[in-house]
Amino acid sequence: MDIFHLPAVESLVRAALAEDLGRGDLTTRLTVGPEVNGAATIVAKQEGVLAGAPILRRVFDCLGAESVAIDLLAEEGASFSVGDVIVRLKGAAVDLLEGERVSLNFLQRSCGVATTSRRFAEAVSGTGVRVVDTRKTTPGFRVLEKYAVRIGGCYNHRGGLDDGILIKDNHIVAAGGVAAAVQRARDGAPHTIKIEVECTSSDEIAAALAAGADIILLDNMSVDELEAAVQQIGGRVVTEASGGVDLSTVRAIAETGVDMISVGALTHSAGAIDLSMRLHLE
Amino acid sequence: MDIFHLPAVESLVRAALAEDLGRGDLTTRLTVGPEVNGAATIVAKQEGVLAGAPILRRVFDCLGAESVAIDLLAEEGASFSVGDVIVRLKGAAVDLLEGERVSLNFLQRSCGVATTSRRFAEAVSGTGVRVVDTRKTTPGFRVLEKYAVRIGGCYNHRGGLDDGILIKDNHIVAAGGVAAAVQRARDGAPHTIKIEVECTSSDEIAAALAAGADIILLDNMSVDELEAAVQQIGGRVVTEASGGVDLSTVRAIAETGVDMISVGALTHSAGAIDLSMRLHLE
Amino acid sequence: MDIFHLPAVESLVRAALAEDLGRGDLTTRLTVGPEVNGAATIVAKQEGVLAGAPILRRVFDCLGAESVAIDLLAEEGASFSVGDVIVRLKGAAVDLLEGERVSLNFLQRSCGVATTSRRFAEAVSGTGVRVVDTRKTTPGFRVLEKYAVRIGGCYNHRGGLDDGILIKDNHIVAAGGVAAAVQRARDGAPHTIKIEVECTSSDEIAAALAAGADIILLDNMSVDELEAAVQQIGGRVVTEASGGVDLSTVRAIAETGVDMISVGALTHSAGAIDLSMRLHLE
Amino acid sequence: MDIFHLPAVESLVRAALAEDLGRGDLTTRLTVGPEVNGAATIVAKQEGVLAGAPILRRVFDCLGAESVAIDLLAEEGASFSVGDVIVRLKGAAVDLLEGERVSLNFLQRSCGVATTSRRFAEAVSGTGVRVVDTRKTTPGFRVLEKYAVRIGGCYNHRGGLDDGILIKDNHIVAAGGVAAAVQRARDGAPHTIKIEVECTSSDEIAAALAAGADIILLDNMSVDELEAAVQQIGGRVVTEASGGVDLSTVRAIAETGVDMISVGALTHSAGAIDLSMRLHLE
Amino acid sequence: MDIFHLPAVESLVRAALAEDLGRGDLTTRLTVGPEVNGAATIVAKQEGVLAGAPILRRVFDCLGAESVAIDLLAEEGASFSVGDVIVRLKGAAVDLLEGERVSLNFLQRSCGVATTSRRFAEAVSGTGVRVVDTRKTTPGFRVLEKYAVRIGGCYNHRGGLDDGILIKDNHIVAAGGVAAAVQRARDGAPHTIKIEVECTSSDEIAAALAAGADIILLDNMSVDELEAAVQQIGGRVVTEASGGVDLSTVRAIAETGVDMISVGALTHSAGAIDLSMRLHLE
Amino acid sequence: MDIFHLPAVESLVRAALAEDLGRGDLTTRLTVGPEVNGAATIVAKQEGVLAGAPILRRVFDCLGAESVAIDLLAEEGASFSVGDVIVRLKGAAVDLLEGERVSLNFLQRSCGVATTSRRFAEAVSGTGVRVVDTRKTTPGFRVLEKYAVRIGGCYNHRGGLDDGILIKDNHIVAAGGVAAAVQRARDGAPHTIKIEVECTSSDEIAAALAAGADIILLDNMSVDELEAAVQQIGGRVVTEASGGVDLSTVRAIAETGVDMISVGALTHSAGAIDLSMRLHLE
Repeated sequence: MDIFHLPAVESLVRAALAEDLGRGDLTTRLTVGPEVNGAATIVAKQEGVLAGAPILRRVFDCLGAESVAIDLLAEEGASFSVGDVIVRLKGAAVDLLEGERVSLNFLQRSCGVATTSRRFAEAVSGTGVRVVDTRKTTPGFRVLEKYAVRIGGCYNHRGGLDDGILIKDNHIVAAGGVAAAVQRARDGAPHTIKIEVECTSSDEIAAALAAGADIILLDNMSVDELEAAVQQIGGRVVTEASGGVDLSTVRAIAETGVDMISVGALTHSAGAIDLSMRLHLE
Repeated sequence: MDIFHLPAVESLVRAALAEDLGRGDLTTRLTVGPEVNGAATIVAKQEGVLAGAPILRRVFDCLGAESVAIDLLAEEGASFSVGDVIVRLKGAAVDLLEGERVSLNFLQRSCGVATTSRRFAEAVSGTGVRVVDTRKTTPGFRVLEKYAVRIGGCYNHRGGLDDGILIKDNHIVAAGGVAAAVQRARDGAPHTIKIEVECTSSDEIAAALAAGADIILLDNMSVDELEAAVQQIGGRVVTEASGGVDLSTVRAIAETGVDMISVGALTHSAGAIDLSMRLHLE
Repeated sequence: MDIFHLPAVESLVRAALAEDLGRGDLTTRLTVGPEVNGAATIVAKQEGVLAGAPILRRVFDCLGAESVAIDLLAEEGASFSVGDVIVRLKGAAVDLLEGERVSLNFLQRSCGVATTSRRFAEAVSGTGVRVVDTRKTTPGFRVLEKYAVRIGGCYNHRGGLDDGILIKDNHIVAAGGVAAAVQRARDGAPHTIKIEVECTSSDEIAAALAAGADIILLDNMSVDELEAAVQQIGGRVVTEASGGVDLSTVRAIAETGVDMISVGALTHSAGAIDLSMRLHLE
Repeated sequence: MDIFHLPAVESLVRAALAEDLGRGDLTTRLTVGPEVNGAATIVAKQEGVLAGAPILRRVFDCLGAESVAIDLLAEEGASFSVGDVIVRLKGAAVDLLEGERVSLNFLQRSCGVATTSRRFAEAVSGTGVRVVDTRKTTPGFRVLEKYAVRIGGCYNHRGGLDDGILIKDNHIVAAGGVAAAVQRARDGAPHTIKIEVECTSSDEIAAALAAGADIILLDNMSVDELEAAVQQIGGRVVTEASGGVDLSTVRAIAETGVDMISVGALTHSAGAIDLSMRLHLE
Repeated sequence: MDIFHLPAVESLVRAALAEDLGRGDLTTRLTVGPEVNGAATIVAKQEGVLAGAPILRRVFDCLGAESVAIDLLAEEGASFSVGDVIVRLKGAAVDLLEGERVSLNFLQRSCGVATTSRRFAEAVSGTGVRVVDTRKTTPGFRVLEKYAVRIGGCYNHRGGLDDGILIKDNHIVAAGGVAAAVQRARDGAPHTIKIEVECTSSDEIAAALAAGADIILLDNMSVDELEAAVQQIGGRVVTEASGGVDLSTVRAIAETGVDMISVGALTHSAGAIDLSMRLHLE
Repeated sequence: MDIFHLPAVESLVRAALAEDLGRGDLTTRLTVGPEVNGAATIVAKQEGVLAGAPILRRVFDCLGAESVAIDLLAEEGASFSVGDVIVRLKGAAVDLLEGERVSLNFLQRSCGVATTSRRFAEAVSGTGVRVVDTRKTTPGFRVLEKYAVRIGGCYNHRGGLDDGILIKDNHIVAAGGVAAAVQRARDGAPHTIKIEVECTSSDEIAAALAAGADIILLDNMSVDELEAAVQQIGGRVVTEASGGVDLSTVRAIAETGVDMISVGALTHSAGAIDLSMRLHLE
């Protein structure tokens, strides 16, 4: 079961078709006969990185258009330039017209995330530092966006609240201190999951280290503070820098020696890549 | 039933909670007792236009956290500046922590669309021209994004393929010409729906007028071409300009005399507005 | 995606099978072996108009009986007489027996609507007037019933509350008059949708015309009143007569010169056409 | 859990609202403010028997309009005349307008079934014979229609294929005879369920009796044949007459001495009762 | 539609896959290429009775792994010994690995129920008494567990609250006595369903017989009491013994002459049969 | 959102009610008036450990019986003896009767898992070793069963295939060796998740240690082999023993010095605890 067959993705595809088609495509039903065949190409109107093309098969299958042939001309992760043809489709014109917009709406967004991720990955190239995503994703799209992050060359942080432990200030207050919070987490959590603690000062770092944290999140620190923190930690645990990182700052942060940098912008500010479908009838 | 109670919106809220919570919030369960209460504020980290705040009620209700009190401090459509507090919440800390990310993920996106829309609305201010959205929306989010477009001061085009007729070149080819396409549409469509025809040349405009189109979409024309088209049409039908419009070009297009301008960027390139939730325990 | 693949239709088919089969067909499981094959015919026990036969494929597919062969012997819209064989099916007897009742329950209803619609269409034949349906449909069945209306030769009014604007007396009161109501609708509605106003008197007609209504609904008027209204309107906007129309009155109404007549009876009083499935084992 | 809270009914109510509202009620949103309150009455435009009124609560709840007050003025099963007010509602005008059509669409259908059932019940009054329904119901509506049958004074046959055993000719052929079919059914079926066998001749009746059937269905027999069959059976098992029964024939059939008569027309030919909602604003 | 295609079963299979896969199988995605093929065998690690093997097809289909070939080596109901190979599968290693656990989780449970049922069936062998199941089933699994009961050689009681009538003490109290309760049930129930009354004393048995019960449930009686009850009833109605029956007591109860014995342990105490899947890559 | 409000749990509760109620509770509808009130107690018929009682609120809410009052007399995790009253309920008799069986079916199973878990937890008491569960859970029940494991005093392994990495022999073969498999996992997995490797020999342990595994699963080893493995690993990584562990062997395994022991029997062999609901009317 690849990512495109997960139940959450199938539900989203069906929801997208339902919201676009509503009670059916009036224009196409009235003007195009079911016997008309067509070919279509998806063309890039912006440069970018391809991600998510296999979802087209899911879109047309959910549409009941299993007979539409889809030829993916580029591999996931390939770069494309303006004018490049990414996909060719053949089938009933009615099906191509009805699946066009939903297909593009999915593809333009996942390409947008992959393209943004590629830029961040390139910005830290050679440092050995990982750029990782966050939970600032489009509701309903998380597995698709996290997939596009990987395709773009960045890495995933936890998928949700259940597959990682990230102890923030409020958790610490509620638990009565870092030591207690980490201990409670270790006592109750599956042994397969590491414990990450958010720190904003040297004292907090010391407390987290003493408490046995596996990962320390260095939140909203300057480059100088990060360097000091990395030195303080001295490789004993994994370090993650976080907070307002953008393409202009990510390299300097990477060079502080942190192990990874989490960047909300990978998903929450990635615009769509402009793609269009050109149809011609046969 | 306001927009936030529509079945499609409720499904999306539930899907968003399911993808974030998975099998449950490990960190919060382990470190925060159910008896701890907290207060939270949602604070703007960027300036923007508020849209979609009522969805918070839906998020916490779907979470089973009906007891969380939500105080919306600004009206939909209000502008906010960096540092403004938009919403206050009170309730069990567990509930606030679990609903935080999904709430923000919804809100940052709808504010993004409203903010972009506001900019376009202001750009054409005084011309009497409407900026309208397209179907280039985030899958699953259309009613929310089209709502945010209205909040921002722009207008909606059709909601989907079933509540409007837009005859494009392929429909015309398949039908055997503009006259035939428009006639078939008029014969079969509900009388409550207007017929729009996409035109790229003066000849096509003439054909569409002769065929009895109600609306003419002027696709990818220069400002000069648009002016000529407006003159040719002479107010006989509604005119809509379309194609690659951005904030730098929209005013000049508006001044050509078209009735409306459709802008995909309202929804497909609107980044998220950066918002954060600050919690403190009581 | 034809009408029979729409999500709402698939859900209804699944619900219909679930309610009929429950925990499984006891009689068939106990008395018929899975190896027994059969052939079946669907036979008309009343004359009528065929509509909805493609749903049989959906029923058997949802049943997991993709291997049942279905041969539609007549086209949608064809008239049939008592004793006519409409469909032949071949497959496992178990499948034919389990799909029989649900298939017939769908088909008898859609044929009923098509047959009633055909009678109304014939009653106004030659007048150029359209008979249109209403929202008085069977809950869950609207797209199927509106499809059957078209097959029978009548036309669709709006599909729901979202793809048309029909301003009734209460809307007018709430808005503060016809002019205000129409203006608000025009200000906020997509430009692709026309504005219809319900009128019951000459004064209201005058107000609606002045306000710029696109369509005037003449509600519950006598033939004389309708003629006067048509004269008053003088072709400036589309006119629709409505209210308690039946087969005995529809012709006279059509001859008043209105453009269309809406008839709730097309769907809400159309009885089922009696059909039966005859099976024989092989 | 009354009938109106069953999952299948809730699904149908939600589907009905979704199909009517689509992306939201355009007219009401644009012309009626959320602060406008109203009162409404549901008035009979035809005489009939009330059934299904409690579903109004479900409709408005599913609409998110829990605050609409619903006052049922008559009991389920009460007769009403033209002009009778059946229900009063009070609440936000927006809610009343949005729930109106779906409420009526449910109610007119269930009243139609109850009214038809009442006529059949009265036709056999005094004979002690039960008129029972069939599986010829509207897909998705079965529990509602079977409820309306009971309200009208008739009785339910099995609810589906899983809560009764009805051995027809094809089952007999597949099983290799009546004796084998009944034996297999008795061997495999829960002991809580009776075994009914369809018979069309005296020989078949004899075989069914010998095989130990609990109920004999006398299919498509004339009144004379029914009398002979009743005499042959001599009270040893329950008898049910079936096949093309209508109001003009049901009394004579009842007087043949059969125990019950199944009538498809109770559900499949019951038209809707004409009801209307009158709103006035406050 | 066999038991494995029922909507409730399909939903359960999908839920089981969703809960196991979550956002996708991390280990397999990272370590096994999509091109690796494998073969697998399901091997018994305990002796038992096979039931439910056809669900494997459903599991792999719902996984989107239609291309996995499944060879069922034994028939439903066959006994197997430790080390027996029950099923062979071939396909992409990724698919086999992802479907393994869910497949086994279903199969081990249904084999457990069938194995327990076989033991009870053997314990009463030759007495002609039926051992029947109860409603003490795993939520969501009822049709599967009741199927496994039949495969094991026992019988089904009613499937739920809607396909049988079982009047218990509280029903009797609420109705005002046995006679009233039975009469009300007979008046309102479909004629296809028998009426069973729970009795705990000779007086209650007498009352139930007088009231016309079809079946008498003898609840929590000793062997002596059961013998007396059987004698009192004298074959006039079907008798069912119930209450705390286990393998050590079932034979003696069967020899009291009751017609059937209901045993909650068939489903609620049946442990899983230990099965394992062995994969090897190709 | 506690465990009982998770979407998967709500779906399971609804499915359980749907399968038990079907088209409605015939007996109760026919014999008990809606005005009859009752009180009920849930009584233990076996000793055990309480888990899952909060699900009763969910069951009655999903039944539409919000007015039933539920008084939980013991805390989750409390031990109970035969005859102890665990829960008191008050409400309409109809509601209590309809929710009884589903409530008990859930509760008896979760108590069964908690009781089994308590026994294992006690068996290793004082060793500091954790007994952890597996993925051998009842389909659809995983979060409930894993919750009951914790209540009983044991611990959770990963929740599914997405929140932990467990590299088994086939993954190793497919990846081309332990080193490659671990490396690939580390390269691609979120940094919040540990990497566990299944080993069956000293050589494999050495390879896993060299490759940088975080956890080593010692599969199907004897006590002597486990001791040797623990010595070889020397505390460098977490160790988990697995394979056919039961109550008679768990203590000896715990004393080998492993960190945790995974036991499928916690969930897959835990029988239901016998509970009954006693109702009396008021």
